[in-house]
Amino acid sequence: RRRGIPEAILAEGKTPAEVAALATTAVETTGRALVTRADEATASAVADLDADATVDRDDRTRTVVAHAADFAPPALDASVAVVAAGTADAPVAGEAAVVAGEIGATVDRIDDVGVANLDRILDQADRIRGADAVVVAAGREGALPTVVAGLVDVPVIALPVSTGYGVGGEGVAALHGALQSCSVLTTVNVDAGFVAGAQAGLIARAVDAARAD
Amino acid sequence: RRRGIPEAILAEGKTPAEVAALATTAVETTGRALVTRADEATASAVADLDADATVDRDDRTRTVVAHAADFAPPALDASVAVVAAGTADAPVAGEAAVVAGEIGATVDRIDDVGVANLDRILDQADRIRGADAVVVAAGREGALPTVVAGLVDVPVIALPVSTGYGVGGEGVAALHGALQSCSVLTTVNVDAGFVAGAQAGLIARAVDAARAD
Amino acid sequence: RRRGIPEAILAEGKTPAEVAALATTAVETTGRALVTRADEATASAVADLDADATVDRDDRTRTVVAHAADFAPPALDASVAVVAAGTADAPVAGEAAVVAGEIGATVDRIDDVGVANLDRILDQADRIRGADAVVVAAGREGALPTVVAGLVDVPVIALPVSTGYGVGGEGVAALHGALQSCSVLTTVNVDAGFVAGAQAGLIARAVDAARAD
Amino acid sequence: RRRGIPEAILAEGKTPAEVAALATTAVETTGRALVTRADEATASAVADLDADATVDRDDRTRTVVAHAADFAPPALDASVAVVAAGTADAPVAGEAAVVAGEIGATVDRIDDVGVANLDRILDQADRIRGADAVVVAAGREGALPTVVAGLVDVPVIALPVSTGYGVGGEGVAALHGALQSCSVLTTVNVDAGFVAGAQAGLIARAVDAARAD
Amino acid sequence: RRRGIPEAILAEGKTPAEVAALATTAVETTGRALVTRADEATASAVADLDADATVDRDDRTRTVVAHAADFAPPALDASVAVVAAGTADAPVAGEAAVVAGEIGATVDRIDDVGVANLDRILDQADRIRGADAVVVAAGREGALPTVVAGLVDVPVIALPVSTGYGVGGEGVAALHGALQSCSVLTTVNVDAGFVAGAQAGLIARAVDAARAD
Amino acid sequence: RRRGIPEAILAEGKTPAEVAALATTAVETTGRALVTRADEATASAVADLDADATVDRDDRTRTVVAHAADFAPPALDASVAVVAAGTADAPVAGEAAVVAGEIGATVDRIDDVGVANLDRILDQADRIRGADAVVVAAGREGALPTVVAGLVDVPVIALPVSTGYGVGGEGVAALHGALQSCSVLTTVNVDAGFVAGAQAGLIARAVDAARAD
Amino acid sequence: RRRGIPEAILAEGKTPAEVAALATTAVETTGRALVTRADEATASAVADLDADATVDRDDRTRTVVAHAADFAPPALDASVAVVAAGTADAPVAGEAAVVAGEIGATVDRIDDVGVANLDRILDQADRIRGADAVVVAAGREGALPTVVAGLVDVPVIALPVSTGYGVGGEGVAALHGALQSCSVLTTVNVDAGFVAGAQAGLIARAVDAARAD
Amino acid sequence: RRRGIPEAILAEGKTPAEVAALATTAVETTGRALVTRADEATASAVADLDADATVDRDDRTRTVVAHAADFAPPALDASVAVVAAGTADAPVAGEAAVVAGEIGATVDRIDDVGVANLDRILDQADRIRGADAVVVAAGREGALPTVVAGLVDVPVIALPVSTGYGVGGEGVAALHGALQSCSVLTTVNVDAGFVAGAQAGLIARAVDAARAD
Ligand SMILES: Nc1ncnc2c1ncn2[C@@H]1O[C@H](COP(=O)(O)O)[C@@H](O)[C@H]1O
Ligand SMILES: Nc1ncnc2c1ncn2[C@@H]1O[C@H](COP(=O)(O)O)[C@@H](O)[C@H]1O
Ligand SMILES: Nc1ncnc2c1ncn2[C@@H]1O[C@H](COP(=O)(O)O)[C@@H](O)[C@H]1O
Ligand SMILES: Nc1ncnc2c1ncn2[C@@H]1O[C@H](COP(=O)(O)O)[C@@H](O)[C@H]1O
Ligand SMILES: [Mg+2]
Ligand SMILES: [Mg+2]
Ligand SMILES: [Mg+2]
Ligand SMILES: [Mg+2]
Ligand SMILES: [Mg+2]
Ligand SMILES: [Mg+2]
Ligand SMILES: [Mg+2]
Ligand SMILES: [Mg+2]
Repeated sequence: RRRGIPEAILAEGKTPAEVAALATTAVETTGRALVTRADEATASAVADLDADATVDRDDRTRTVVAHAADFAPPALDASVAVVAAGTADAPVAGEAAVVAGEIGATVDRIDDVGVANLDRILDQADRIRGADAVVVAAGREGALPTVVAGLVDVPVIALPVSTGYGVGGEGVAALHGALQSCSVLTTVNVDAGFVAGAQAGLIARAVDAARAD
Repeated sequence: RRRGIPEAILAEGKTPAEVAALATTAVETTGRALVTRADEATASAVADLDADATVDRDDRTRTVVAHAADFAPPALDASVAVVAAGTADAPVAGEAAVVAGEIGATVDRIDDVGVANLDRILDQADRIRGADAVVVAAGREGALPTVVAGLVDVPVIALPVSTGYGVGGEGVAALHGALQSCSVLTTVNVDAGFVAGAQAGLIARAVDAARAD
Repeated sequence: RRRGIPEAILAEGKTPAEVAALATTAVETTGRALVTRADEATASAVADLDADATVDRDDRTRTVVAHAADFAPPALDASVAVVAAGTADAPVAGEAAVVAGEIGATVDRIDDVGVANLDRILDQADRIRGADAVVVAAGREGALPTVVAGLVDVPVIALPVSTGYGVGGEGVAALHGALQSCSVLTTVNVDAGFVAGAQAGLIARAVDAARAD
Repeated sequence: RRRGIPEAILAEGKTPAEVAALATTAVETTGRALVTRADEATASAVADLDADATVDRDDRTRTVVAHAADFAPPALDASVAVVAAGTADAPVAGEAAVVAGEIGATVDRIDDVGVANLDRILDQADRIRGADAVVVAAGREGALPTVVAGLVDVPVIALPVSTGYGVGGEGVAALHGALQSCSVLTTVNVDAGFVAGAQAGLIARAVDAARAD
Repeated sequence: RRRGIPEAILAEGKTPAEVAALATTAVETTGRALVTRADEATASAVADLDADATVDRDDRTRTVVAHAADFAPPALDASVAVVAAGTADAPVAGEAAVVAGEIGATVDRIDDVGVANLDRILDQADRIRGADAVVVAAGREGALPTVVAGLVDVPVIALPVSTGYGVGGEGVAALHGALQSCSVLTTVNVDAGFVAGAQAGLIARAVDAARAD
Repeated sequence: RRRGIPEAILAEGKTPAEVAALATTAVETTGRALVTRADEATASAVADLDADATVDRDDRTRTVVAHAADFAPPALDASVAVVAAGTADAPVAGEAAVVAGEIGATVDRIDDVGVANLDRILDQADRIRGADAVVVAAGREGALPTVVAGLVDVPVIALPVSTGYGVGGEGVAALHGALQSCSVLTTVNVDAGFVAGAQAGLIARAVDAARAD
Repeated sequence: RRRGIPEAILAEGKTPAEVAALATTAVETTGRALVTRADEATASAVADLDADATVDRDDRTRTVVAHAADFAPPALDASVAVVAAGTADAPVAGEAAVVAGEIGATVDRIDDVGVANLDRILDQADRIRGADAVVVAAGREGALPTVVAGLVDVPVIALPVSTGYGVGGEGVAALHGALQSCSVLTTVNVDAGFVAGAQAGLIARAVDAARAD
Repeated sequence: RRRGIPEAILAEGKTPAEVAALATTAVETTGRALVTRADEATASAVADLDADATVDRDDRTRTVVAHAADFAPPALDASVAVVAAGTADAPVAGEAAVVAGEIGATVDRIDDVGVANLDRILDQADRIRGADAVVVAAGREGALPTVVAGLVDVPVIALPVSTGYGVGGEGVAALHGALQSCSVLTTVNVDAGFVAGAQAGLIARAVDAARAD
C-alpha cells in the first residue's frame, strides 16, 4: 500500500454493505483494512466479512481493523506519544493510536493531562520528550497542544476534538487555537484521529529508516 | 456617574469635534472623561478642550483621560492584576489598566508571560493570587487566561486581543478559547480593554466596600 | 478543591459509566460532585453510585449534585442574584443557581422579567442592587443583561440562552449582544450556566472574605 | 416614480461621473434625485450637475438631494419618528430621515436615547406613540428597537448601525438582535437608512391615503 | 393586550405543560392565546386546557389559537395579502395569515407564484396592489419579495422560508436576498411567520384607524 | 493553449514586473496574453512590454489584452450574451465579455435590466434566446440570473458581483442566490468575470464545432 | 415543459401527499415527473400514483421518475460524462445522471477516480474528452473537478458532495474549491445533482441542435 | 533556544522599535533572530540594530535574519522540499524555506507546479520523494498538497496561501481543502510559512539525529 499507511475506509456516507465490500478488497489486495467512524451496523458487517481474517473492533474509537491470516504487521524502531486532555478526548485519541500502531510505531498513551491542572502535564514532559512524534488531542479551548509544543522538541501534531457547546463548540475553538498557536505545531481537522495518527506514523517511519541507515 | 465607572466615550464612529464636545460635558458634569480608541486627531481635540482640566493621553493604548481641576480621584482598598501574554498584547492590557485605575483600584501589571514559556507565568502565580480581580490579555490562540484561571482562586476576566492572521485571527480564536475554557472565567469582546478593566474595577469596588464594613 | 468550586463534570461526550466513575472519585476525594448537562441515563447512573451520598438531581436544569455523608456545605456571607428573562431561560438560569449555591452564596432567583415589558424589571431593580453579583440569563435578542447592567452598580455576568430560531438563533444573537453591550458586563458562552454561576460564586467568595477581614 | 419613493442612486461601486449622469436623468424624468453613500468627489460631481436644480448635500449622512426648479415636493398628513440611540447612530438615522421627508412625511427626530439610561427613552414614549411609523437606529448590541417596540403600538422598523468592534461588530449583533427580537418589528440591513426611511414613508403614505378617504 | 397583537407563546424550548399554563393565563387575562411552533404534544396539551374556550389548531402551520367563550374577535377595515412562492412555503405563510387574521385584518392568500414562472406573479399584481400591507414568503434564493416590491406601492414584508439545502440553505440565502434587495422592503427572520403577520397587522390597524378618522 | 482559452494571468498577489514577465512569455509562446484585475501600475508595465504586440487595456474592467503582431484571433460561429443588472455590474460583466470575445464568440451585451423594473428584462428575452450561452451579472440580492434562467432555454451562468453592504454584502447574497436558485443555472465566484466568460466561450466553441460537423 | 428539462419536484419540505399530487399533475400535463431527494414514504406515495404510468425509483439516488404510458423520451445526438471521485459520491452523481438522461443525453458514468490515485483519472482523460459536457462529483477537499478541467477542453461542471466532517465538512470545502479553482469551471451547490445534470443536459441540447443544423 | 528553532518575532502588531529591541535581545542571548512579516520600516529598524551582526533581509518574503558575528549556523544531514504552485505562492513558500534553512536543513525549492498542468508536478515526484519532509504552498483551491501527498511517502505539510478573491478567498478554500484532504497531511494556518518551515525543520532534525545514531 502507498506510503505504508493501511488502506483506510471512512464509513460515514457509505452503506454497511459498501464498506464491507471495500474492506474485503483491501484485505485481499494489501493484507489488511482499517475502517474508521463505523457505527454498529457497519462494524458488524465488516466483522462478518471473512472467516480467515482477524478482525479487531473498538466501539469507543469506532474503528475496525482486519488482518488477513497471513498478514505480518510491521514493527518500527520509533515511537509515537498520543496525549489526551480528558475523558471525552480519549476515543479520538484512540483512533490516532490505532493508526500509528498499524503503521508499526510503538504507541505511548498519556491520558487526563488537561491544562486546568498544569502539574499533570509538567509531570509527563520527559516521557513525551522520549517519543519521535507526538499527537495531542484536546477539545473545548484546546490549550493543551500549545502547552505541550512549548515543553518539548519533538514534532507536535494537534488533534482538535469536537467537545464543547455554544459558539466555538464542536471543536472549532480547539482547531482555531491550533491554527493560531504561538508554539510550533501542525494540525488536522476536528476529530481527524486517523490523519493525525497516520502523519505521526509517517514521521516514525522516516526516523526508523534513518536509524536503520 | 452611574456605577462609579468614569464616563467613557468610544471615539470610533464619531468625529473629533463630537468626541471633544461629549468629553467637555462629561468633565463638567462628572468631573472627568475617559476617551478610548482615540486616533491622533481625536486625542488632540480632547487635549485642547479645557485649559483647567488635567489631560493625560497615552498613544499606545489610544486613551485620553481628562480630570477637572477640582476632581478628586477615588482610591479603593482593593487591587486588580492586569496580565499580558506578549508585547503585542500590551496596548489593550493598558486600556484595561487605565480604566481600573480610574475606578480607584491599585493596578499591578504583569507582562510577557505567554504560555510558550510556562516558567514565566508559574513564577508570577503568587503575585496574581494577591489581587482581588484579574484581567488576562492574550491574542493568537489565547491559552493564557485558561492557564491563569487554573492557577488562582481570584475571579479571572479574559481579554482577547486582535493579534494573529489567517483563520481564527484578529482575536477570534482567543475569544473562542475564552468561551470554551475548561477553567472558570468570563470574557469580554476582542480588544475590549475598557470593559474588562471596568468589570474588574466593579469587583474591586465591591471588595473595598466589604472591607470597609 | 481548587478555587472552592465544586468538581464539575460535563456529561456530554462521556458515557454514563464514565461520568459515574468520575463523580465517585470526586465525592471520595473532595466530598462532593456536580454533574451538568446530564441526560436521563447519566443522571440515573450517578444517582445509583453510592448508598451513603446524598444525591440531588434536577431534570429541568439537567444537573446532579452528590454530597458525601460527612460533607459540610460552605455558607458565605454574600449573595448572588440570578435573573431570567422568560420561561425558556429558567433551566439554564437554574444551572447557574445550583453552582453558586454549592459555592455557598445565598441565591436570589428573579424570573419572568423580559424587556418586552419593562415595568417588571424596573420593579426588581432594588432587589438586584442588594446582591453582590448578578447573573442575567436571556435568549433571543438578549437585551436583558444590557438593561440590567444599566440599572445597577453590582458586577453583571451575561448568560446567553440557546433560544431563538433562524439567523442569530440558538443563542448566538444573545451572545453577540453581550459582547457588544453598551453597558459594562462580562459574558460566558451560550447555555454556560455552570461558568456564570461559578464566576458569580467566586466574586461572592471574595466579598465574603473581605467582610470577614 | 414608482411607489412615490424618490429615484435613489447608491454611489458605492460607481464613479462620480456615472452617479452624476444617473442623477441628471432622474431629475429630468422624475423631477428629483437622491444620492446615498456619496463620498466627497461624488457629492461635488452631483452638486455641479445642473444650474437650475436645487441641490442639498449633507456630508454627515452622505446624501445629496437634487430637485428640479419646478419640482413640488409632496406633503403627507402622516408622520415618521426617527429615533437614534447615540451620537454614532445619527448619520444613518439622518439618511432615513431624508428619505422619509422626501416621500412627504413629517419627520420627528429623537436622539440620544440609548438603553444604558432607560429614563431617556421612557420620557419619549408618548412622543413616539404619536407617529404613524417609527425607525429606530442603534448599533453595538442594538437593544433599543426591542425596547421601543415593547413600549408603543406603532409599526417599528429596526435600523442596525455599523458601530462596534470585535465579534458581532460592524452592526452584526444589532442586526441579529432585530431578527431575534422578542418584540414585534421588522428590520433592514446594517446601515440601510434609505430602506428603513423609505418603508416608513410608504406606511405614512398608506395612512395619509386612508385619512383622505 | 399591548399593541392589539394576541398574546403569543413560542412553544419551542418550553415543555407542553409550561405552554399550556401560559396559554391558560393568556386566555383568562386577555381573552385569547396564540401558540406558535407547537409540536403534536404541545398542541394536544393546549387543546385540552379549558372546556369553555374555542381552540383551533392547524398542524401544517403548527399554530394553536384559543378564544375564551366570550371573546369577540376584532374586525378591521383593512387587508393584508399573504403571498407564497411554492408548496413548501405555505405553512410559514399560514402562520403569518393566522396572526394577521387574529389582529382583525382581512387576509388574502395568494399561492404558487414563484419567479421561475413570471406570468403567475404578473397576473396577481393588481390583486396585491389592493391590499394595505403585503407579506411575501419565499425560500431557496428568495427572489419573490424583490420582484413583488418592484411591482406594487404597498409596504412589503419579506418572509424568508427555511427551504433549500447546501450553502445558503435553510433560508439563509432568502434572508440575505431580502437584506440586499434592490427594491424597498423590510424583513423578518427565517420562518418568522408570526412576526411578519403581526407587523402587517399593525400596519392594517394604523390604516383602519386612519380610515375611521 | 489548452482549451482555446487565452493564457490568463490574475494580477492580484503578483508584482507588476512578475505579471509583465508572465505576459511576455505567454505572448511569445501562445501568441497572446490576457491580464485580469490589473491595477494602474500593472497595466502600464504590461502595456510597455513589447513594441510589436498590440496591447488593449480597459481600465474599467481592469483587463489588459496583448496580441503578438502575427496573432490571428479566432472567430466562432456561435454567440454569448452578457447581461448586466445595473451600472455597478458593468465592469465585471465587461471582464466576461473580453474573455468570451478572445475565445472567438460573438458577444452581445445587454445592460441595465435589473429586476426592480421587470419590463426591461422581459423586453430583452427574445434577444437573449438567440445566444448560445448567457452570462448574467448581478450584485445585491442577485435575483436577475434566476429570472433570466426562468425565461430562456439557453445555458445560463450566474456572475455574482461584489456590490451591496452589510450582511450578505460584497456579493455573498448574490452568490448564495445563484446556489439556491429555483431555476437551472451554474455559477462562478463573486466577480469571477474571467471564469464566467471562459465557460460561456467553451460552450460556444462546442456549439461552433457541432455546427461545423 | 420549459427548457426541455423534466418537471422536477424537490421532495424536501413537502409531505408525501403534496409531492404525489404535484407529480400527478406533472405527468398529466407534461408526460412525466422527476422527484428528487425523496425519502421512502414519498417514493412509495409517488410509485402508487397512477396505474398507467411507468415509475422508476432509485433509492440510492433518492429519485423517482414517472412516465405517462404514451410518453416518448427524447434522444439527443450528444453526450454527458458524469465522473465521481469515490463510493460516497456515487448517489449524488447518480441524481445528475438521471436528469441528464431524461433530457435525452447519452450518459457515460466514470466512477472511483479520486485524486489520491492520479493514474486512474489520467487513464480516463480521453474518454472524458469524448463527451459534450462533463459533471464531476467530489466531496471532501474536492480537488477532482479542478484536475479534470485541467485535462480536457469540454465544459466542466463541478458537483460538490456533502461528505467530510469537521471544519469545511458537509461539502463546504469542495464548494469553496470549485469557486476558487485555478482551472475554468462553473459550479452548483453542494449535493445539487439535479442542477448539474440539468445544465449539462442543456449544453448537450444546444450541441445536438447545432449538429442537426 | 528551545527546540532549535531560531527565536522568531512576528512583526505585525508591534512597532519597529519594539521589534528591533526584541531582535537585539534574541541576537545577544541566542546568537540570532528571525523577524517575519516585517514591513519596510521594521526591516530597516532591524537592519540597523547592531554593527557586528550579519543581517539578511528579503523584501519579497518579508523576513529579516540576524546572526551574531560569532554565530555558527547548524547543518543537518536531512533535507526539506518546499514546493509552490504558482508565482503568487512564492513569497510565503520563501518564508518557510528561510526558517527550515535556519534550523539547518538542506532546502530544495520547486516552483510553478500548479495542478492546472499536471505534467509539471508529475515530473518532480522523484525529486520530492528524496526529501525528508515536504512543505507544499498553494492558494486558490489549494489542490496541490493533496496531489503531492498522493504521490509521495514523505510527511507532507500543507501551507495555504492567501490568494483568491470572493467566497473562500484569502486562502480559506485552500485551508479547508487541507483540512478535508483525502490524502494524509497536516496543515498550518493561511500564510503561516514560519510554522510550516519550522515543523519541517523539526522533522529534519529528528531524522538527522536518527542518522547520527
Ligand atoms: N413564532 C414566533 N416567532 C417569533 N416570535 C414569536 C413567535 N411566537 C411568539 N413570539 C414572540 O415572542 C414573545 C416572547 O415569547 P415567549 O418566549 O413565549 O415569552 C411573544 O410575546 C411574541 O411576541
Ligand atoms: N480574474 C480571474 N479570476 C479567476 N481565475 C482567473 C482569473 N484570471 C486568471 N484566472 C485563472 O487562474 C489561472 C492561474 O492564474 P495564475 O495565478 O496567474 O497562474 C489562470 O490560468 C486562469 O485560468
Ligand atoms: N434536487 C433538486 N435540487 C435543486 N433544485 C431542484 C431539485 N429538484 C427540483 N429542483 C428545482 O426546483 C424547482 C422548484 O421546485 P419546487 O420546490 O418543487 O417547486 C423545480 O422546478 C426544479 O427546477
Ligand atoms: N510569522 C510567524 N507566524 C507564526 N508564528 C510566528 C511567526 N513569527 C514568530 N512566530 C512564533 O510566535 C512566537 C511568539 O512570537 P511573539 O509574538 O513575537 O512573542 C515566536 O516565538 C514564534 O514561535
Ligand atoms: Mg482542553
Ligand atoms: Mg497567547
Ligand atoms: Mg430576551
Ligand atoms: Mg445601542
Ligand atoms: Mg423562491
Ligand atoms: Mg440585482
Ligand atoms: Mg475528493
Ligand atoms: Mg492551486
